[in-house]
Amino acid sequence: MNYRIIFHMAGRVLLAEAGLLVLPLAVSFLYREDCAWAVLASMAVAAVLGGLLTLLARPRSHKFFSREGYIIVALAWVLLSAVGALPFWFSREIPSYADAFFETVSGFTTTGASILTDVEAMSHGLLFWRSFTHWVGGMGVLVFITMLSGSTDRSMNILKAEMPGPVKGKLTPRTRDTARVLYLLYFLITAVLVGMLLLGGMPLFDSLVHAFGTVGTGGFGIRADSIASYSPYIQGVITVFMILCGINFNLYYLLLLRQWRAALRSDELWTYLGLAVVATGVITLDLRGVYGGLGTCLRQAAFQVSSVLTTTGYATADFDLWPGLSRAILFALLFIGGCAGSTAGGLKVSRAMILLRTIRREVNRLVHPRRVTAVRCDGKALSSEVQRGVSIYFALYCLCILITFLCLSGEPFSLETNLSAVVSCFNNVGPGLGAVGPAGSYAGYSVLSKLLLSAAMLMGRLEIYPMLVALSPSVWRKD
Amino acid sequence: MNYRIIFHMAGRVLLAEAGLLVLPLAVSFLYREDCAWAVLASMAVAAVLGGLLTLLARPRSHKFFSREGYIIVALAWVLLSAVGALPFWFSREIPSYADAFFETVSGFTTTGASILTDVEAMSHGLLFWRSFTHWVGGMGVLVFITMLSGSTDRSMNILKAEMPGPVKGKLTPRTRDTARVLYLLYFLITAVLVGMLLLGGMPLFDSLVHAFGTVGTGGFGIRADSIASYSPYIQGVITVFMILCGINFNLYYLLLLRQWRAALRSDELWTYLGLAVVATGVITLDLRGVYGGLGTCLRQAAFQVSSVLTTTGYATADFDLWPGLSRAILFALLFIGGCAGSTAGGLKVSRAMILLRTIRREVNRLVHPRRVTAVRCDGKALSSEVQRGVSIYFALYCLCILITFLCLSGEPFSLETNLSAVVSCFNNVGPGLGAVGPAGSYAGYSVLSKLLLSAAMLMGRLEIYPMLVALSPSVWRKD
Repeated sequence: MNYRIIFHMAGRVLLAEAGLLVLPLAVSFLYREDCAWAVLASMAVAAVLGGLLTLLARPRSHKFFSREGYIIVALAWVLLSAVGALPFWFSREIPSYADAFFETVSGFTTTGASILTDVEAMSHGLLFWRSFTHWVGGMGVLVFITMLSGSTDRSMNILKAEMPGPVKGKLTPRTRDTARVLYLLYFLITAVLVGMLLLGGMPLFDSLVHAFGTVGTGGFGIRADSIASYSPYIQGVITVFMILCGINFNLYYLLLLRQWRAALRSDELWTYLGLAVVATGVITLDLRGVYGGLGTCLRQAAFQVSSVLTTTGYATADFDLWPGLSRAILFALLFIGGCAGSTAGGLKVSRAMILLRTIRREVNRLVHPRRVTAVRCDGKALSSEVQRGVSIYFALYCLCILITFLCLSGEPFSLETNLSAVVSCFNNVGPGLGAVGPAGSYAGYSVLSKLLLSAAMLMGRLEIYPMLVALSPSVWRKD
Repeated sequence: MNYRIIFHMAGRVLLAEAGLLVLPLAVSFLYREDCAWAVLASMAVAAVLGGLLTLLARPRSHKFFSREGYIIVALAWVLLSAVGALPFWFSREIPSYADAFFETVSGFTTTGASILTDVEAMSHGLLFWRSFTHWVGGMGVLVFITMLSGSTDRSMNILKAEMPGPVKGKLTPRTRDTARVLYLLYFLITAVLVGMLLLGGMPLFDSLVHAFGTVGTGGFGIRADSIASYSPYIQGVITVFMILCGINFNLYYLLLLRQWRAALRSDELWTYLGLAVVATGVITLDLRGVYGGLGTCLRQAAFQVSSVLTTTGYATADFDLWPGLSRAILFALLFIGGCAGSTAGGLKVSRAMILLRTIRREVNRLVHPRRVTAVRCDGKALSSEVQRGVSIYFALYCLCILITFLCLSGEPFSLETNLSAVVSCFNNVGPGLGAVGPAGSYAGYSVLSKLLLSAAMLMGRLEIYPMLVALSPSVWRKD
């Protein structure tokens, strides 16, 4: 194991974080807020710690395998959150460090689960930082940093560990160039969204913060009722952009290259859009008794479905008060998540799709044992390795949710609250049902449970394996 | 497709059911109950329908593939339940046919979920029949009938479709002889249990009924509080026999052959016992505040854990009122079920074990990509085909539960009630949490939901594939 390169890279990540903190610092200076000192102190900690690690752990060899990739990713995300929590803690705006850590993990993992009971009392500088972590986490911070500096095979191993989705390396040949274009797109979509929110009369600060939360599929808001008090235009714009950001970004890349046919021949895309439409339709009908006109029902249904499906977690209504069928559909959507290669969390539509097709093939094999059929995706047969990987990942995913749920169930909340809290955190959605519904918060959980849920968010965002590899005893044994 | 043999066999199953109805008929005569006429009428229906099917659908060819095996099993179980429901309906002791059907499916599938709100008002004859269906269902009625009559490859194909567990055909060479020994064991264990219950002062009728429910891992009781009002001795005996009947019956066969080492070198057995011990231990500690002495806590925990783990469903306490951790553990156990090759339902311990080991191997492969390791079970490497089968089955299992849950969620019950109802029915346990907890019943569900839950019980008992094959359009197309 190449420990030096791991710590060296971890140091670089902290240095980058010190740089990222310049933005909330500027915001707090602009609003003349006291939290500026807390941000400044955190920058100093990040810079000193990062500098020391980078200098002291100068790598002697550049050996870098997938093992190192997994561990650096796991370590970097924990460190990022641990240091990113300092501004909240130093400023006493979140007095408990465990709470601040939970909130920051929730930010970087683009979850949006909050322990704040009065978000409107927070300073602008820290609200900005809180939402900015969504944006940074959504783009895959490590790939970004490696891309700026490292070698190609190092980026590939980090990409493999940090990027979500069952099929990796689609863009292998020129990873760095492609990644650059994808990040450009990410900036561009954010800029367009900010513009459209400004057009709707939203103040600049609000527009930036909500653009970060939407494009990163995070979900931290700045009002107690999330997005409910903004205009229908704003709600509509956010609905559309949530859906857009739950789509595989490669698709936009292909559109840029004018490869229309390749871009649109994505089974995952159509399954994802189909899911959104069907869920919205059923919930709209189910809501007839709750809201006045069918238009309002449709608007509310579309927003909440997009929010949960893309694992964003904004809300324009307290869906915990909705009828049973609507709640059950949202609960089921909590598990699925957006498309692979998007900023969304969850199991991913492509995995669900591949599982379904594998099952269908299995039934067909029982009916016609001698007929040979393949599981296809986008017109191509999937290798048995990918199919195997997807079904093992699914079992692992269920196991992690089960264990976290059991550990959490000593808490004095209903089974529904605990289960939806675990599923929501693990899939990086944010709100759940019951006490952790859109109108509630995670404040009531004990310190231990908050750490557990933080681990669940990290596991979910990094798709489990990096954390498992880092925790596996055999990886730390001498070679 | 060989339709004739399918209908011919279905006819035989009905004839056998007419024969089985002799027992409840005798009981109702003995107690001079009016329901005797209802039982007699049902026998007539079964005999006439069965006779007609057997005679009219005389098979022209004896072609019998696994496809036919799946379909005959699916059809036979539905028919058995449809006709077996008649005594309840004819006697008006269960006035709605849908309710009677639900109750009978619940019996044959050894679930034990009930729509009765006052079980103590039922006649002895019908209570006997209700519990007797557990015993018949537990032993795999079709294998039994085929064994008495058919050819060897026919039995194998039916065995494959009706017997639970991921690895089939362990006992292939002399299936019929082995099956005979297994059934003898089944009778023997039942007889021993009846004897031990009688020794504890339980009346003969109660002993028989509870022996059927325990050995078949069913769970229909005859008192409103299930087993709670019987003596600690009785509760202890039932605890032990539930655990014994959740073990793979092959193990007893091997013990009979004095192959001690082979019998005890079963990873599934030790995992199963380990699960029971750990769950009992944790729940015992969690119950300290609920019951007086630690002894009572242990007794209550052991009974409920055994009942849920083996998918029996008896209760000596209303565990729906227990603290959160205990409820969560029981909820998690609802999914697992007993050992393959036992009378218990559920996912099966061996599947859970194989999934866990496949995951562990996967993580090890990430850490040491070049090291070749196999997933082992009982000291032997598992074929990739078995591993693949287990992970696909698991995905299918989750999908079925999800779909049933969504369909049920229009019901005006809590998410917890609906979810646990689906999981409990699908895994053939019986009671769930909330409104369907040990003190509740399924009476509140609509007719449609009852049919849906009946389908879930059948799916769970037959491990999904037979129902899917029977419902698959491609199987009914002309060859």
